Amino acid sequence: MSSINPKINVKKKRPRSLDEYIDGIDSGDRYVLSEAITLVESITSTELQIAHLLLSYAYTKPSKSRRIAITGAPGVGKSTMIEAIGKHYIRLGHRVAVLAVDPSSGISRGSILGDKTRMEYLSAQENAFIRPTAAGKTLGGIARHTKEAIILCEAAGYDRIIVETVGVGQSETVVAGMVDIVMLLLQPGSGDAVQGIKRGIMELSDLFVINKADPDRQRLTEETLRAYSSAIPLLIRNHSHWRAPVMAASALLETGIDDLLAMISKFYDQSPTSYIATRRLKQDSQWYVDQVQRSVLDRLLKRQEVIRFTKQKLQDIDNHKTDPFTAVYSTLNHIFR
Amino acid sequence: MSSINPKINVKKKRPRSLDEYIDGIDSGDRYVLSEAITLVESITSTELQIAHLLLSYAYTKPSKSRRIAITGAPGVGKSTMIEAIGKHYIRLGHRVAVLAVDPSSGISRGSILGDKTRMEYLSAQENAFIRPTAAGKTLGGIARHTKEAIILCEAAGYDRIIVETVGVGQSETVVAGMVDIVMLLLQPGSGDAVQGIKRGIMELSDLFVINKADPDRQRLTEETLRAYSSAIPLLIRNHSHWRAPVMAASALLETGIDDLLAMISKFYDQSPTSYIATRRLKQDSQWYVDQVQRSVLDRLLKRQEVIRFTKQKLQDIDNHKTDPFTAVYSTLNHIFR
Repeated sequence: MSSINPKINVKKKRPRSLDEYIDGIDSGDRYVLSEAITLVESITSTELQIAHLLLSYAYTKPSKSRRIAITGAPGVGKSTMIEAIGKHYIRLGHRVAVLAVDPSSGISRGSILGDKTRMEYLSAQENAFIRPTAAGKTLGGIARHTKEAIILCEAAGYDRIIVETVGVGQSETVVAGMVDIVMLLLQPGSGDAVQGIKRGIMELSDLFVINKADPDRQRLTEETLRAYSSAIPLLIRNHSHWRAPVMAASALLETGIDDLLAMISKFYDQSPTSYIATRRLKQDSQWYVDQVQRSVLDRLLKRQEVIRFTKQKLQDIDNHKTDPFTAVYSTLNHIFR
Repeated sequence: MSSINPKINVKKKRPRSLDEYIDGIDSGDRYVLSEAITLVESITSTELQIAHLLLSYAYTKPSKSRRIAITGAPGVGKSTMIEAIGKHYIRLGHRVAVLAVDPSSGISRGSILGDKTRMEYLSAQENAFIRPTAAGKTLGGIARHTKEAIILCEAAGYDRIIVETVGVGQSETVVAGMVDIVMLLLQPGSGDAVQGIKRGIMELSDLFVINKADPDRQRLTEETLRAYSSAIPLLIRNHSHWRAPVMAASALLETGIDDLLAMISKFYDQSPTSYIATRRLKQDSQWYVDQVQRSVLDRLLKRQEVIRFTKQKLQDIDNHKTDPFTAVYSTLNHIFR
């Protein structure tokens, strides 16, 4: 039986072969790198096997990269900070990849372009690669394929990977499980305010930076430094070899950036030799477990009719038409019927 | 084909009928309540349908219960505090159910009996029901069926439900999603020490209590009060109508307990009328979603051969014999083959 398909015939590029991807990555081609990330992001892709072979190849390439997360509430100056840090790294001869995991990108689409515009210097650099992740590619604010993007960027020769994330959702926890060091940006005067950051992200942070520490608010900055310095022993996770410091900087004025980079280097130098390698291996194991679980749930729960069914059950719970126990029972019967 | 089954023939009790369970619950029979909780805990039970009908019945019974979580590091005096609070509630004419979610119970089996012994007064009360959850019934320190136990206790007429949990794992987050108010117990002098509590649990707490505030360590207690009082604005979640207070008490000397109960009452009274009901309904929805996901994962990932397969993959990742991407790919192929 044949049927006429009225879909508009979009002219598609011929898909690249695995070898073409590998060659492009190996030569550090930014366009191929960008396409490779798109490839691993497209979960419905028929090229799933190419994606996985490509990642498998990229994973085994040696890299001396540093994976740095920069997080903080909207407006705290993350992009400006990335621009400042990135500029310093570029001048030191590094190659910088910026992966932005911004759940707000989708809401105001301008912010993707905004980021690019704000990272004026980096955008113009041969040795920088900026990749914003649109909300459409995220799941509940969590970029699903940031880890893959990190691996691909490293394989393409980027040795400073900066992952930007907004300190308001679950994405920080996920991102913290993909990087070596987490830097949390704060505002002067935020010592007693809550500024919309989940407390949990503080626990995950290795480095606290009071940004916007401009000369005209020196007193406020110092107060904030003191407030966080005394609170942080209550907040942070324990690396036996690392006590998370609180620093002040101005990304806009580019003051304090040298100290900040020195502190990051200190983190890597102080860490026992195998610390980073061991940590990454642990992250890989955890990622594997999480990914298997997520994929299993996706296959069974993301089908349209299952989504409809569970939505109805949630409504029924809300309207007291059913109880959660009966709802679970009938949903499982529905899924595994 | 017949085969001789050499198993020892354990004499089993005749399973109760749904009506028997309901009658027992309705009359507040503690033995039936205990058996009902065991019923819902036995996930492999062939009586799954009775369990779910029973829960469905229990859920619809009206109850004016308060659901209170008590958490804190081991040794901080949770059992003693529960005994003290429970005693006050009993004397006020309430019926008290204690559900202990103690991941350590399994390690030192004595602690289950220990708890019972320490709760000497409550153990002897007609109007108290104490149910420790052994580690065998927990999943990674999380009691899987605490919510069900709460509902059954309420249906059996218990109007003060106290859930005990140790502030070291994930169980607090799960338990916080089942109660109205979370009380975190702390030690005097712990202001700068970490005392093994996950920072995240502070964010979930509605009430901080410095326990063991004995007269001979008044200065230390006051210091600790000050330290936490200044740190807590950085730590707590925001109820618009509630600022988590820090109090001092001694469960052992039974000092400060009246103030503590008054503060719990204040929490309920200050909350907008529908706050608790809305919160519980939200918890129910979240529980439904979590439970469906967990059950789906259980069915697919808890099969012996899948466990073997994933363990092997984790070893291979550790030994650099595979990468996490290939491992996910082959695991999914294995599960859905």
